[in-house]
Amino acid sequence: MQVRSKIWVEVGGEPVFGRGRRFLLEAIDKHGSITRAAREINISYRRAWSYINAMEERLGIGLVERHTGGKNGGGAVLTDEARRFLEKYALLEEGVRELVDEKFKNIFTGERDV
Amino acid sequence: MQVRSKIWVEVGGEPVFGRGRRFLLEAIDKHGSITRAAREINISYRRAWSYINAMEERLGIGLVERHTGGKNGGGAVLTDEARRFLEKYALLEEGVRELVDEKFKNIFTGERDV
Repeated sequence: MQVRSKIWVEVGGEPVFGRGRRFLLEAIDKHGSITRAAREINISYRRAWSYINAMEERLGIGLVERHTGGKNGGGAVLTDEARRFLEKYALLEEGVRELVDEKFKNIFTGERDV
Repeated sequence: MQVRSKIWVEVGGEPVFGRGRRFLLEAIDKHGSITRAAREINISYRRAWSYINAMEERLGIGLVERHTGGKNGGGAVLTDEARRFLEKYALLEEGVRELVDEKFKNIFTGERDV
């Protein structure tokens, strides 16, 4: 018997940020490109943009800077604020997983199949 | 900005118990009847039974005792083991919510709109 957990962030009762959005921003950071990030997580470029816009609007912070042109044909980079947010969110996800496991063990110890 | 969380219990990688099953067992406890419990949470009697059977099998504990006949036409009661399991699960859910809120505040304090 194992416990599983899921977390997400809401603003005004609306989901704004969770594991999927985390993967999107991390993929942008890795590839330096929204097109390649969208491809990696199997969504369209259009959808990636709409996710980014919604997050920026609801969180009230700029997350992705577009660079057009240049010898590499432009690209996208995360803002410092996006990096700080991602770091905190990763800390939160990992911390929560540990806390949930610990709490589960404390409460269910002695239960069959634990 | 608020954090939300969800937990559930798995056995062998398969979901076995979560908020919905908790409500089902609590409704059986309240009504003393699977029929009325199923009605309250808007599922069929047949589905309620299949949920109960699956939980009993996967958790390896008896959860619901049927009583047939008698002047009240029979009914269903939770076993002591089911009550103990429910108590622990409720403790876990509430404990996790508090821990997640606390962890969120610790990590995100200073973030805009917190």
